[in-house]
Amino acid sequence: MTHNLLKGKRGIIFGALNEHSIAWKVAEKAVAEGATITLSNTPMALRMGELDALAEKLNAEVIPADATSVEDLKHVFERSVEVLGGPVDFVLHSIGMSPNVRKHRTYDDLDYGMLSKTLDISAISFHKMLQTAKKLDAIAEGGSVIALSYVAAQRTFYGYSDMADAKSMLESIARSFGYIYGREKGVRINTISQSPTPTTAGKGIKMMEDLMDFADKMSPLGNASAEECADYCVMLFSDFCRKVTMQNLYHDGGFSSMGMSLRAMNQYAKDLSPFEDENGKVVYG
Amino acid sequence: MTHNLLKGKRGIIFGALNEHSIAWKVAEKAVAEGATITLSNTPMALRMGELDALAEKLNAEVIPADATSVEDLKHVFERSVEVLGGPVDFVLHSIGMSPNVRKHRTYDDLDYGMLSKTLDISAISFHKMLQTAKKLDAIAEGGSVIALSYVAAQRTFYGYSDMADAKSMLESIARSFGYIYGREKGVRINTISQSPTPTTAGKGIKMMEDLMDFADKMSPLGNASAEECADYCVMLFSDFCRKVTMQNLYHDGGFSSMGMSLRAMNQYAKDLSPFEDENGKVVYG
Amino acid sequence: MTHNLLKGKRGIIFGALNEHSIAWKVAEKAVAEGATITLSNTPMALRMGELDALAEKLNAEVIPADATSVEDLKHVFERSVEVLGGPVDFVLHSIGMSPNVRKHRTYDDLDYGMLSKTLDISAISFHKMLQTAKKLDAIAEGGSVIALSYVAAQRTFYGYSDMADAKSMLESIARSFGYIYGREKGVRINTISQSPTPTTAGKGIKMMEDLMDFADKMSPLGNASAEECADYCVMLFSDFCRKVTMQNLYHDGGFSSMGMSLRAMNQYAKDLSPFEDENGKVVYG
Amino acid sequence: MTHNLLKGKRGIIFGALNEHSIAWKVAEKAVAEGATITLSNTPMALRMGELDALAEKLNAEVIPADATSVEDLKHVFERSVEVLGGPVDFVLHSIGMSPNVRKHRTYDDLDYGMLSKTLDISAISFHKMLQTAKKLDAIAEGGSVIALSYVAAQRTFYGYSDMADAKSMLESIARSFGYIYGREKGVRINTISQSPTPTTAGKGIKMMEDLMDFADKMSPLGNASAEECADYCVMLFSDFCRKVTMQNLYHDGGFSSMGMSLRAMNQYAKDLSPFEDENGKVVYG
Repeated sequence: MTHNLLKGKRGIIFGALNEHSIAWKVAEKAVAEGATITLSNTPMALRMGELDALAEKLNAEVIPADATSVEDLKHVFERSVEVLGGPVDFVLHSIGMSPNVRKHRTYDDLDYGMLSKTLDISAISFHKMLQTAKKLDAIAEGGSVIALSYVAAQRTFYGYSDMADAKSMLESIARSFGYIYGREKGVRINTISQSPTPTTAGKGIKMMEDLMDFADKMSPLGNASAEECADYCVMLFSDFCRKVTMQNLYHDGGFSSMGMSLRAMNQYAKDLSPFEDENGKVVYG
Repeated sequence: MTHNLLKGKRGIIFGALNEHSIAWKVAEKAVAEGATITLSNTPMALRMGELDALAEKLNAEVIPADATSVEDLKHVFERSVEVLGGPVDFVLHSIGMSPNVRKHRTYDDLDYGMLSKTLDISAISFHKMLQTAKKLDAIAEGGSVIALSYVAAQRTFYGYSDMADAKSMLESIARSFGYIYGREKGVRINTISQSPTPTTAGKGIKMMEDLMDFADKMSPLGNASAEECADYCVMLFSDFCRKVTMQNLYHDGGFSSMGMSLRAMNQYAKDLSPFEDENGKVVYG
Repeated sequence: MTHNLLKGKRGIIFGALNEHSIAWKVAEKAVAEGATITLSNTPMALRMGELDALAEKLNAEVIPADATSVEDLKHVFERSVEVLGGPVDFVLHSIGMSPNVRKHRTYDDLDYGMLSKTLDISAISFHKMLQTAKKLDAIAEGGSVIALSYVAAQRTFYGYSDMADAKSMLESIARSFGYIYGREKGVRINTISQSPTPTTAGKGIKMMEDLMDFADKMSPLGNASAEECADYCVMLFSDFCRKVTMQNLYHDGGFSSMGMSLRAMNQYAKDLSPFEDENGKVVYG
Repeated sequence: MTHNLLKGKRGIIFGALNEHSIAWKVAEKAVAEGATITLSNTPMALRMGELDALAEKLNAEVIPADATSVEDLKHVFERSVEVLGGPVDFVLHSIGMSPNVRKHRTYDDLDYGMLSKTLDISAISFHKMLQTAKKLDAIAEGGSVIALSYVAAQRTFYGYSDMADAKSMLESIARSFGYIYGREKGVRINTISQSPTPTTAGKGIKMMEDLMDFADKMSPLGNASAEECADYCVMLFSDFCRKVTMQNLYHDGGFSSMGMSLRAMNQYAKDLSPFEDENGKVVYG
């Protein structure tokens, strides 16, 4: 059942690669809820992924762009306004990559050229997107912009390396630009801090499976899926959250507010004796 | 236009007094989106307010209850399950009051009997509600519970007094119980940290108007209204955010992420010279 | 080597029980750094513990008091000012207890009379202490007050139960009263959020050992000991941090800023294959 | 009176320019507390400032370096270890500059080459410092590293522009590297979030005076001075805080925990009637 939550709205989805991508699910849900959209990704991603199939299914134009290029972004916004018939109401930024992580360079052995790339791709691209859109006046009054983040922006996870710093900066950009774009055009800008998700991008991060298991057992509701994240994005794009801005919103089954769950501790301490109190009664929570 | 977001869902709204109440707006929106509900407030509030008119309009039964009484809460849940035809899918806790604030006792001259009342009414009632519901199994799998909070739980506002401590505790209860109820029944529990809102309850707080003006000028999107808060509640009750739990969600036009806006500073420094740079150019943001 | 950091300063230490207590260590260090102090604890704790031995060693008077009694607290401050020869410069609140935890009542089966006791002992006692001191003008200009807290105030730990809510309230009281006492008397009020510590009080909390092992492996510097906590307290009492107030200060070896460490994950996933990358190289951090 | 808090310790102070600099005060205090140090700043800063006078007074060698150059940083650490006679125990990073702010480019009109410079100077230099030191093993076991930050990393202040994003990233680097350096060498890494301070660097930020007045009136203890910040740094360098790491520590007179003070509101609402309750009694707090 759909709800026409985005009926008549126009949007741009950056970063869909294949059916595992959160951006892919957002595109599908947004269209199902009544939106018309364009899709954008890098030329290389377009070759590697299956975006054309999605575009066809959703009747959406694909506009290739390197999100680190202001020129390319300008084209995406101009072309989107043109084909969609007006300024856009929502934008999703689902872009992130660390050459240092890919090359297994540890955080105390970063290559600084690669760090620049990490920041440019994963954080500064978001500023470029917003600045370009604002200069073109390409986002409609009251529009909603979301970038995807991760709790590593607040807490350190081994192996996440310079992506943590990039996510911290990404969330800061959402606040800094949210102030400007909010007061001048009523445009909302938020980040969603999503559970670790088994996407193609996620596979670049070391020992992802163990971490996902831990996150799942820590989270009272379990890890949030890509599809559930898409639901949340649709909600934030809709008119039901018009006064939420400059926020980092955890969509993680409760992980971010957990210190230790019984389920996770049970795995952690699995060689130790069962969880009993001094009367031999197994205690629960 | 409505969206059937709560079609087939059952809910209980605690704390509606009159048309200025956030809870009042939530009740209206929830029913408009397809829910069937019951309403509850204290016998005194029922006499002072206009809840009967709302109940009639929404075809909702009013169940009087003192939310500090486990017995009364038990009755509300049992009766709601009965008249609505099954366990409820959502609950709104919009309850708060400080006798110390009412009596103009400053924070360094609290009456401790009154402080107990503040906590009992404004925070512990939320735990009682959740514990009672869980023992009765009165909230359906995947249900959504919201309590209304305020940013004073994180930052001190003069005059807010012991309500700040109560709100801190309220938000903690949402986390603590969110863990238990989440893992066992998939029930989500969150607080919404709402802009200062010109409700009847808000009038008990000193110099509310000045503070509301400040909050409005600080917030890029301005203060969020009671009606907008109701939209946000409806969304959080819906199936579009099934993996959000244990969170305190700011619904405040961006206030919580602001340090100082130009508009607020303009008022603050209004005797000083206009905002120009050293070349006499007025600078903006 | 001592540093005369508290030379000429007067203080009151609440909550020392035996040599494992953080408060015990604080008392020793404070005196070693040149302070004169009084000690206070409940009559029952005085019987169970070994406070008299400490008092003798430190040449400190013991003033029995139930910290939930304003009358008793009044006596502690009056007597301390008298025996120490003037208003006090620092106060330590190391008091906390949950009858619900002691009685193994889970968080969804709290006894509300016990919850009131938890709050009264673990949080409201701090307000009573501050309000009493302020009315008596018993803390000197620029004085420093510390209460001990735990990260459960921000994140849920299974088994910590209503103590989490009490700690949230405790930290809120530090902020709320820090505002009042700061602007009027320059008195600083902070909480220290300490690693789980093997104190007598800590033993009341279920499966403390597993949790301590987890915290230790998560924290880059390992868990902070009671003695190290005492060092930190001494420093916060000193004139080296006269502008720090209304803060919750983590003293936890880094735990609060960790999402997952390699050491902890190694234990968590210990049945799984070693931590190698796709080339069979063991990766580290 | 000094306390020999840093007796026998070696340190490096980056970023002292003149007697208004926080780094200048830290250098003076550190030496007064028994440390031997080296000083570093850019060649241009050395020409513009008065570092030689300080160096002479403190008997400290000045080692010119561009903190964005790994080569230069390598030299600073190698030379410091050499002249100080061993690995250093503490490091201060007090470096930050935004060409965009200097050129009055608003946040929605950033020059991206300048943004790269902002990040390189204000944030990445901190990573380079840490990575260089670690590769050289130039920081002693248990050493303490501090970088200076500002609350704009968490909340948006008009005019602070891309420095906010740089500070967010700086604080993230402290966490990310704090994990690595902590577990391997026991080195602590923290940021101090300092009140706005009337330094030379601060003058680059627009309408600093109004903001400083607001911050001062909001903070119960008033703004923290450069000298007080130096005290706090010394404390964090000392052995009294050996288990504090990966933290952002507010040193701001309470500003960060304030929502609104009566003093600031009094200025804000200064045309409005005095602060009286309904009985004409002026209320306070």
